Amino acid sequence: MAEGDRLTHIDASGAANMVDVAEKADTSRTATAIGSVSMKPETLAMILSGNAKKGDVLATARIAGIMAAKRTHELIPLCHPLALSKVTVEIDPDETLPGLRVKATTKVTGKTGVEMEALTAASVACLTIYDMAKAVDRFMVLSGIQVVEKSGGQSGDWKAPDWNGAA
Amino acid sequence: MAEGDRLTHIDASGAANMVDVAEKADTSRTATAIGSVSMKPETLAMILSGNAKKGDVLATARIAGIMAAKRTHELIPLCHPLALSKVTVEIDPDETLPGLRVKATTKVTGKTGVEMEALTAASVACLTIYDMAKAVDRFMVLSGIQVVEKSGGQSGDWKAPDWNGAA
Amino acid sequence: MAEGDRLTHIDASGAANMVDVAEKADTSRTATAIGSVSMKPETLAMILSGNAKKGDVLATARIAGIMAAKRTHELIPLCHPLALSKVTVEIDPDETLPGLRVKATTKVTGKTGVEMEALTAASVACLTIYDMAKAVDRFMVLSGIQVVEKSGGQSGDWKAPDWNGAA
Amino acid sequence: MAEGDRLTHIDASGAANMVDVAEKADTSRTATAIGSVSMKPETLAMILSGNAKKGDVLATARIAGIMAAKRTHELIPLCHPLALSKVTVEIDPDETLPGLRVKATTKVTGKTGVEMEALTAASVACLTIYDMAKAVDRFMVLSGIQVVEKSGGQSGDWKAPDWNGAA
Amino acid sequence: MAEGDRLTHIDASGAANMVDVAEKADTSRTATAIGSVSMKPETLAMILSGNAKKGDVLATARIAGIMAAKRTHELIPLCHPLALSKVTVEIDPDETLPGLRVKATTKVTGKTGVEMEALTAASVACLTIYDMAKAVDRFMVLSGIQVVEKSGGQSGDWKAPDWNGAA
Amino acid sequence: MAEGDRLTHIDASGAANMVDVAEKADTSRTATAIGSVSMKPETLAMILSGNAKKGDVLATARIAGIMAAKRTHELIPLCHPLALSKVTVEIDPDETLPGLRVKATTKVTGKTGVEMEALTAASVACLTIYDMAKAVDRFMVLSGIQVVEKSGGQSGDWKAPDWNGAA
Repeated sequence: MAEGDRLTHIDASGAANMVDVAEKADTSRTATAIGSVSMKPETLAMILSGNAKKGDVLATARIAGIMAAKRTHELIPLCHPLALSKVTVEIDPDETLPGLRVKATTKVTGKTGVEMEALTAASVACLTIYDMAKAVDRFMVLSGIQVVEKSGGQSGDWKAPDWNGAA
Repeated sequence: MAEGDRLTHIDASGAANMVDVAEKADTSRTATAIGSVSMKPETLAMILSGNAKKGDVLATARIAGIMAAKRTHELIPLCHPLALSKVTVEIDPDETLPGLRVKATTKVTGKTGVEMEALTAASVACLTIYDMAKAVDRFMVLSGIQVVEKSGGQSGDWKAPDWNGAA
Repeated sequence: MAEGDRLTHIDASGAANMVDVAEKADTSRTATAIGSVSMKPETLAMILSGNAKKGDVLATARIAGIMAAKRTHELIPLCHPLALSKVTVEIDPDETLPGLRVKATTKVTGKTGVEMEALTAASVACLTIYDMAKAVDRFMVLSGIQVVEKSGGQSGDWKAPDWNGAA
Repeated sequence: MAEGDRLTHIDASGAANMVDVAEKADTSRTATAIGSVSMKPETLAMILSGNAKKGDVLATARIAGIMAAKRTHELIPLCHPLALSKVTVEIDPDETLPGLRVKATTKVTGKTGVEMEALTAASVACLTIYDMAKAVDRFMVLSGIQVVEKSGGQSGDWKAPDWNGAA
Repeated sequence: MAEGDRLTHIDASGAANMVDVAEKADTSRTATAIGSVSMKPETLAMILSGNAKKGDVLATARIAGIMAAKRTHELIPLCHPLALSKVTVEIDPDETLPGLRVKATTKVTGKTGVEMEALTAASVACLTIYDMAKAVDRFMVLSGIQVVEKSGGQSGDWKAPDWNGAA
Repeated sequence: MAEGDRLTHIDASGAANMVDVAEKADTSRTATAIGSVSMKPETLAMILSGNAKKGDVLATARIAGIMAAKRTHELIPLCHPLALSKVTVEIDPDETLPGLRVKATTKVTGKTGVEMEALTAASVACLTIYDMAKAVDRFMVLSGIQVVEKSGGQSGDWKAPDWNGAA
């Protein structure tokens, strides 16, 4: 589990550029990112059982996250385009938050990691939840958006210390 | 400062649809959203003065946030396309975090609010910072992504209670 | 109910160009388009009650149609970009087909009609249904994709003769 | 020629997700889809010899179809991004329809089939024809959009029973 | 005909941001940009009469230019999204170059000028010509890409001194 | 160093189509393109040391060029989508022009060359410079946009005769 000691997107002259990954091996890589949207308990109740079918709110956010993962390289300037082989987004309620927890997993057989794709999927799923509930709750907050697990690639497999696999 | 009591993107049958805003007035609307990326103190130091020109890392994240604001309606399924008249993104270091704080402001003369555009700009700027520093710090976390100020539109002007205008 | 007598996107020299709509009035315009996907009865049964939650298949197709409507001007070369104020997509089963019927409605206050947006939403919703069921039925057919109702603009309001409002 | 017995984009819990294709083999795959736009005989005559150069109307539709094929994964939520190696679109008049018939062929060396790309190309070419002729004929209908031939992949080669290769 | 004395996209602190145009008037604005692709005489001959139908090469470039104009705000970071009301692209051979000359005209009723849209249309039409002929001529050069005429907006109408309206 | 004798995107019937590259070998390919923006000496001075931080103007143009390279296949109708492994954009002042010179380098391991990606990056970087300085100088001109070096692929390595590697 080795981290580097320099910002890889910045070249010797200090300019931001898209680094060369041509010499890296094509290996199977996965990443999992999480995030959450905290809200008022009544907002969560409305999403889960109120005047909306639970399915549609969460399905919309899940689809938005999946579609955003495929556009990561259009949004993040120095990300490489990738032929993602899998994207899943899960959304679960957490009444202790209270709010919704999002978990996104991405996979590729390629030369670069897929953590930005997982983070983008999680972020856009959270943003979509915010959009769908903002008329009833303007103080929702997105937080804890982070990578919790990664496999493949030269930095090896790793998992966030306190990550137990739940969303 | 009135909030509604229903999820506006969900119609009577429970299906998610893009609501009709044709009858809303064209008024001047602004929104400000914030967010932060927390990181190890040495990561922040490297971004600010290490082997990168500060300008390029922050300029890349700022440009990414601005460009993402313009694509909000492509990412968030039920957002209306908007002719944004202004987008600004500011990024400032906060050594107590430690990390970087992002503030995005958006403006439109139109029929719907621009908080999703501000949130999208802030989120993508944070994701870009993550991307540029991930080789040296895999445990960065994005948090506190929220709307802090809004003006125009039928819900009137409001500001988050503890928001003092700083990024 | 007047139709023109020339192909408006083709100029005097015969070249395809995006016509000038600057002098047209900003009026409220709507359009409704329909389409259907016919399939084997067991495919329809599987979508409606089989090993999938009905909600998710139809929600995915509905969201895809709504998002595609917003990108019509990127797909159809000579369409003008529009600030759509509303897009709805409804999908209903029809066991006599057997299959699913899609109805898309679009609205704008602007200088050009929104029938291409409605047609694009209906087409992409149908394509998404095909994608989700193609592993079990390779002979599905998309048909009857057409505009059935239009209001606003200089050609006035009209409705297809045999259109009763059902999807 | 085996078809599956479940909707592959729907996981065990019923949620729509982008399935994992990482373990599938990289093989050469092709697909051909067709579709048609029926119209009044005088609309067809105008497109073919009237006040438009035939070349430009059909060239515009063909280019639109090719460009749309490359964006299939942006439009259809659960499609994988693909490095298409070939896309062709042919458009031929059929006076018995009367109207235009579109045939799109796509090819990839990859892990998933390209029928959605062929269908998207055919659909968008049809939509573009509609757009270019709608000022003179509002009752055009798109129909018969279907996959007629496929090769490569684990389901093997197949052809629609009544497909003879004509557009 | 007044030019400003500062770089408008750069704010007081030196950061690049998308400037506020909300207070500018909605006026009718047009811009015309030109550009050319110089090539070997035999390349030009092949495009005009060789083994290609002239219509298709030029139609493809023209369509590409028109579609690119609509995406200017996605490509140029600080451009505002605009509801273009017209885009035309003309391409004419010039045997004295030898090569092809492109002229693009854009129009909007809005708060900002459309010169970037005209320049983007002209540039992408030139790039498309290059793409279609590069197999036979690798030394083609794009040059003279500039704005030659502009009307509307606070800087008033102007025309490049030596511009006579030809492509 | 062999050039072909036909326009490869045009098929036997004269129609523009996206050619089949499936049988071409996956080899490492690079391309370098250049271009320049000429401007008044005082415009150059303002960009380099005036009321803008040099970093931000050039960083914005560099990021825009890199992002555009990744979208080449969306802009140029018959370009294949590519998994670019590297994109760099360098911008240097040339007081003899006077103006800025842009050099873009692209790399892929794939079946087709990357010269269109390099040309698109260079063009969009030039357009972005124009956009950022247009308020102070409306007579800037983009010129000399061309490929100067290419390696890999069946046409072998080549370099423009008078190209010495400088931007």
